[in-house]
Amino acid sequence: VTDGAPRRRRVVIVGAGFGGLSAARRLDGHDVDVTVVDRNNFHTFLPLLYQVATAGLNAADVAYPVRSVFQRHQHVAFRQATVTGIDWERRLVLLDAADPLPFDHLIIAVGSAPNFFGTPGAAEHSFPLYSLAQATGLRNQVLRCFESADAQVAHQRDGTLNFVVVGGGPTGVEVAGALGELIDKVLARDFHTMDARRARVILLEAGDRLLAPFSTRSQRFARQVLTWRGVDVRLGEQVTEVRPDAVVLASGEEIPTRTLVWAAGVRANPLVDQLGFELGRGGRIRVAADLSVPGHPDVYVIGDSADIAAGPAPDATGDGAPRLPQLAQVAIQGGRHVADEILRGEGAPRPFHYFDKGIMATIGRRAAVAELPFGPPLRGMVAWLAWLGLHLVYLMGMRNRASVFVNWAWNYLTWDRGPRLIFAGSGPPTAGAPTDT
Amino acid sequence: VTDGAPRRRRVVIVGAGFGGLSAARRLDGHDVDVTVVDRNNFHTFLPLLYQVATAGLNAADVAYPVRSVFQRHQHVAFRQATVTGIDWERRLVLLDAADPLPFDHLIIAVGSAPNFFGTPGAAEHSFPLYSLAQATGLRNQVLRCFESADAQVAHQRDGTLNFVVVGGGPTGVEVAGALGELIDKVLARDFHTMDARRARVILLEAGDRLLAPFSTRSQRFARQVLTWRGVDVRLGEQVTEVRPDAVVLASGEEIPTRTLVWAAGVRANPLVDQLGFELGRGGRIRVAADLSVPGHPDVYVIGDSADIAAGPAPDATGDGAPRLPQLAQVAIQGGRHVADEILRGEGAPRPFHYFDKGIMATIGRRAAVAELPFGPPLRGMVAWLAWLGLHLVYLMGMRNRASVFVNWAWNYLTWDRGPRLIFAGSGPPTAGAPTDT
Repeated sequence: VTDGAPRRRRVVIVGAGFGGLSAARRLDGHDVDVTVVDRNNFHTFLPLLYQVATAGLNAADVAYPVRSVFQRHQHVAFRQATVTGIDWERRLVLLDAADPLPFDHLIIAVGSAPNFFGTPGAAEHSFPLYSLAQATGLRNQVLRCFESADAQVAHQRDGTLNFVVVGGGPTGVEVAGALGELIDKVLARDFHTMDARRARVILLEAGDRLLAPFSTRSQRFARQVLTWRGVDVRLGEQVTEVRPDAVVLASGEEIPTRTLVWAAGVRANPLVDQLGFELGRGGRIRVAADLSVPGHPDVYVIGDSADIAAGPAPDATGDGAPRLPQLAQVAIQGGRHVADEILRGEGAPRPFHYFDKGIMATIGRRAAVAELPFGPPLRGMVAWLAWLGLHLVYLMGMRNRASVFVNWAWNYLTWDRGPRLIFAGSGPPTAGAPTDT
Repeated sequence: VTDGAPRRRRVVIVGAGFGGLSAARRLDGHDVDVTVVDRNNFHTFLPLLYQVATAGLNAADVAYPVRSVFQRHQHVAFRQATVTGIDWERRLVLLDAADPLPFDHLIIAVGSAPNFFGTPGAAEHSFPLYSLAQATGLRNQVLRCFESADAQVAHQRDGTLNFVVVGGGPTGVEVAGALGELIDKVLARDFHTMDARRARVILLEAGDRLLAPFSTRSQRFARQVLTWRGVDVRLGEQVTEVRPDAVVLASGEEIPTRTLVWAAGVRANPLVDQLGFELGRGGRIRVAADLSVPGHPDVYVIGDSADIAAGPAPDATGDGAPRLPQLAQVAIQGGRHVADEILRGEGAPRPFHYFDKGIMATIGRRAAVAELPFGPPLRGMVAWLAWLGLHLVYLMGMRNRASVFVNWAWNYLTWDRGPRLIFAGSGPPTAGAPTDT
C-alpha cells in the first residue's frame, strides 16, 4: 500500500439482489476490488417466487449461486454473512460469521421485507412471499392442507381448504391466480378420492380496485379473469387480525383459514434500522439525488431499501415528492448509476435518472396485463407471452433459463405441475455448525 | 357389503419406496382397493441421493409425488401419514394424522435406516444419506464449510475443510468420489479467493477392501480411481466416536472434521420395532418363504424391512441361511410377488424367487463398476454409461428423467454443477399446522 502504486479501492456491496448484482457487474473489470455480501449464497429471482409457491417451478430454478456469476472474475469476491453494523472510524463492515470487511465505498442493497402495518397476528401466522424459504413454505402449507383434508374428513369443512390472499397488487393477483389454477387443474386430479372443488381461493383488497398502479382497463381485466377462474375477489375488505385458523375483517366477519398469504405491502429490510441513517417512507433510507446517503458521500443505497424522490420536491423538506416504486428496474438502473459514480471518482455527484420501462403482471394461463412506456396497454395472451419472454431474459444463468422454459412448456402443454413436493427441511444442524467463531 | 356383490378387498401398503410402489402398480386395475401410506408425499429415488448431496442434481429431480403416479387410477389412494400401530382385532392401520385405515391385506415396505452400531456421537453428529432431507442437509453442510473457511481464515486450518466418509460400500464410494469431484472441479473455481485445495476427502473402511460384494478386480479399480482423484482411502480403520468437530479412530487418532458422512451400514426402519413381529438380522422382520409374516398370512413384508433367506436354511432355525441383500431389485420383485399372491387369493402360498440382475456402483466421472449375471465384469466408461442409462430408466416420471438427463449432460460437458445452494428450510410452521386432529 505504501509502495507508490495506488491501492485499489475496495467496494463492499451488501445484498445480492437485482441492485447489488447490477452494481457488481458494472464495477467488474475496473480498477476496484469488489466484495458482495449476502445472507444467502444465491441470488433469488423474486418475480417468479409465486410460481415456486404454487408448484410450477423448482426452488433451484429461481435461485442462482452468486459465486457462479463471478467465478472467472478475480476481483469480485463473495461473503455469505449478515451485516451486524458498520465501524465508521476504521471503515469496516462488521459481519456475524466472517472477518470484518474494510471498505472505501459501500453500497447498501438489502431490499424489502413484508410490511404488516401492525396487524395483530400477521407476522406470526401469515405467509409472506419475499424469500425462497417463504415460497417453499407456502407450497408445503397448501399441499399439507389438501393432504390433511383427504386424511381427515373433518378438515374438509373447517376452513383448511380456504386459501386467503391479502393485497390486490401484482403479487396478490399473481398468487391468487396461480393458486386457483393449481387447485382447479392439478390438485383436483391428484385428490380424486375427495371433492377438491370444496377448496376456495379468496383475494382480499382494502382499496376499491386491484392492481392500483395500472390503468382502469387493466384493473377490470384482472378482476374479470380472476373471477372467471374461480377466485373470490373481495374489494374494500380490511384485515384487522390474523389467527392460526382464521382471518378477521374490519366488518367483524371471520373467514376460517390456515393459509393466509400476506401480499399487502412492503417496507425496507429491517437491517437498515441498525445502520443509524435517517429513514423515510416505509423504513427506507433517505438518499440524495445521486443515491448517496446525506453526510456519507461514499455510501450509496439502491433499490427497495432506498427512499428515492421521483421528481423535484414541492417543498423544502422533500417529503411531498412522489417516490420511485419498488421495482427490479429501479434497483438495476440504480446499481449501474452508483457503480458509474464510484468509477468516475471525481467531480460533482450526478443525479440518478430512472428510465421507466413499464409494468406488467400475470394473472394466470394465457392472461396478463402489461403497460409499456410506448404503445397501448396489452392484455391477455400477448401480454402473457411478453411477460414470459421478459422473465426468461432477466433470469440468471443458462441452466436456470433452460429449466424454467422446459417447465413452462410442460405445464402449458400437459396442464400439469411439476414439483408438488411437501419438503420441509434439509436437516440436521446437530453436526458442528462451522459458522461460530 | 351385504347386497350380494362381494366387497372389494382392501390392501394397505405402508411405504412408497421401490417395493411399495411396485406392489401398488401390480395391484392397480384389479379387483382390490389400494391405499399407499407414506410419511412423505413423494417417492424418493434413493440411488441418486448422493448426487443431490454433492450438488449435481436438484432435490426435485429425485423425488416424485406419489399422487402423480396414480392420478388416473380411481382405486389407488394415497395417505400422507406415519403408522403408529395396528389394531389387529378391528384390522385397522392406525395413523398419526389421519383417520384409521381398514385393511384385508397389509404390505409393509418401510425400508432402511442408518445403523450406527452404537458408536457414540454417530447418531447426533454424522450425516447419513437415506432421505432427501439428509441429502440436502449434507449439501448445505459441505457448502457452508467452504463459505466459513473463506469468511474466516481460522477455519482454513481447523478441520472445517476435512470431509470424512465412513463405510467403503457402494454408497461410501459414490459419495467420496462425487465429493472429490465437486471440490476439485467446481468449488476450487467458486472459491478463487482462497486455496480450496486445502480441502481433503477421507474414506474410512473398517474392512480390508472397498465394495465388499464386488469382485477383487472391481474393488481394486474403485480404490485406484478414488486415489487418483485425490480421495484419501484408508482401509482397516474403525470409528470409535464421532464428535461435532472430530472423528476418533480405534487407533486413537483423531481427524478434525465437521462433516462426517455415515455410510457404514443399514438396519430396518425403526418403525418395524413397534409392530410386535419377530425381528431377525439388522432389526428386519422375519418372513416366510412367500414373504408373509409367520402367523399373519395376510401381512407381507418386502424390501429392506424384510429379513429374507436367500436359500434353504442349513439348520432348523434358519439362522444360518444367507440373506438377500438390501437392493432396489429385491424390493421391486418382492412387491410384484406379494401383489400376485394377494390377487391369486386361494391355494398354498408360493415362495418368492429373487432373480439377480447384478450390482453396480459409480465412482465418478466416466468411472463405474458393474457385475451383471451374464458376461464379464464391466469397468470404467462402459460401466459408467450402463449405470447412467439404467438409472434414467428406473427414475420415475418423464419430467424427472428429462431434468436429470439435461443436468448430467450439462455437468459432463461444462465440468460445472448446478444447484449448489445453501438452502436450509421452507419455514414457517408458526401458521396453523393442519395435521392436528
